[in-house]
Amino acid sequence: LTAPLASQEFEKRLRRIGEERYHDKHPFHRLMNAGELSKGQLQAWALNRYHYQAVIPLKDAAILSRMEDVELRRMWRQRIVDHDGDSDDQGGLARWIALSDGLGLDRRYVMSTDGILPGTRFAVEAYLNFVRERSLLEAIASSLTELFSRSAIGERMAAMLSRYNFITRDLLAYFERRLAQAPRDADFALDYVKREAKTFDQQQSVAAALEFKCAVLWSQLDVLYYSYVSPGFIPPGAFRPN
Amino acid sequence: LTAPLASQEFEKRLRRIGEERYHDKHPFHRLMNAGELSKGQLQAWALNRYHYQAVIPLKDAAILSRMEDVELRRMWRQRIVDHDGDSDDQGGLARWIALSDGLGLDRRYVMSTDGILPGTRFAVEAYLNFVRERSLLEAIASSLTELFSRSAIGERMAAMLSRYNFITRDLLAYFERRLAQAPRDADFALDYVKREAKTFDQQQSVAAALEFKCAVLWSQLDVLYYSYVSPGFIPPGAFRPN
Repeated sequence: LTAPLASQEFEKRLRRIGEERYHDKHPFHRLMNAGELSKGQLQAWALNRYHYQAVIPLKDAAILSRMEDVELRRMWRQRIVDHDGDSDDQGGLARWIALSDGLGLDRRYVMSTDGILPGTRFAVEAYLNFVRERSLLEAIASSLTELFSRSAIGERMAAMLSRYNFITRDLLAYFERRLAQAPRDADFALDYVKREAKTFDQQQSVAAALEFKCAVLWSQLDVLYYSYVSPGFIPPGAFRPN
Repeated sequence: LTAPLASQEFEKRLRRIGEERYHDKHPFHRLMNAGELSKGQLQAWALNRYHYQAVIPLKDAAILSRMEDVELRRMWRQRIVDHDGDSDDQGGLARWIALSDGLGLDRRYVMSTDGILPGTRFAVEAYLNFVRERSLLEAIASSLTELFSRSAIGERMAAMLSRYNFITRDLLAYFERRLAQAPRDADFALDYVKREAKTFDQQQSVAAALEFKCAVLWSQLDVLYYSYVSPGFIPPGAFRPN
């Protein structure tokens, strides 16, 4: 039996996964931040990522449905409130639609998800199944990518505002709000896994869940890059920029 | 209520889906057949496709577990026998391993699936979930891609034998066997959906299932192309050819 890592070592290991695998290192995001994407490529990104966003509250509800501890539930349900808001013009999903509106995409087309890449759909489905089927510890651990999103979002917002003349601050309301929400959510999840992963095997399962989630995010950018940047082969039935 | 298509029209519609979306049209397969892939690229293909192959008997067992009709089960179980054989050196999966062996891949590494692309894993999982969750009609319909595999396999075998000096006939035993099996399986499934899809909506669901399955196959080649051909960015943790 291997002894568990000390709490600080365990956290270091998780943070190293982000340094190596979080999607801010992906060539698609690097192009985005460098101002090198066309409007059509940004449209493809917003359109595909909408599907991921739309599944977030389902993912959080699936996790919530497995929490027997009321305190845990009270904390976790806030994610769903943040995302869904109280009406159609509120919440994270509405803010994402504001972005796709601003990029000139038809809202009904975006919400239908008809034009997304199959690879997007498969990655998102894998995420949803993961939180349904794995242990609660692993399901919560899969949200730990939020540990790395704050600096990534900060960099992205600054870059997008300065490098794309059609991007305005109000289009980026989603990210602005996440700058405050993500660290709170991530800190909570990090405390939880540090406390609940008591054995080395449990710590391993937490690390593997975080790697899995990094792959879910990374692979969505792989298919965007493949389809809309290089070689630029758009699969049958997927969105084609004008 | 829309009237159902006549049987021949319905079959035409299904065959047209294959003409537009079956993965023999994918740029990765075109390169393969043109003899333009390196050995490393073929290794990546065989390694990733192994995972798809390994899930086929699980997929067929999931479908079998939903068949209340004994005659149907007797027919369908043959797929599992074909795939798994009676010992480790028999069956479709063993023949796939013979191919990956012949390409110089370590057998344990292949079977571990450690080095496959996340996009492969997600696509295969989506396929397995599809046959578990959709109607039996849709689950069977998703196998209809076999209608298009015979000519694709024939072309591929001839091309690989003539264009890659490290490919020998015994490495391609998997495909040779499928040349006989696939048409039998496909004809059965085609007869089934033509008989059982009685309404227009059911016919639509059959067509959608076939499109879904085409996307499962196509998207596996998208991620191979992206990672190993162009731009050639291999995701963290995935196989790197020597």
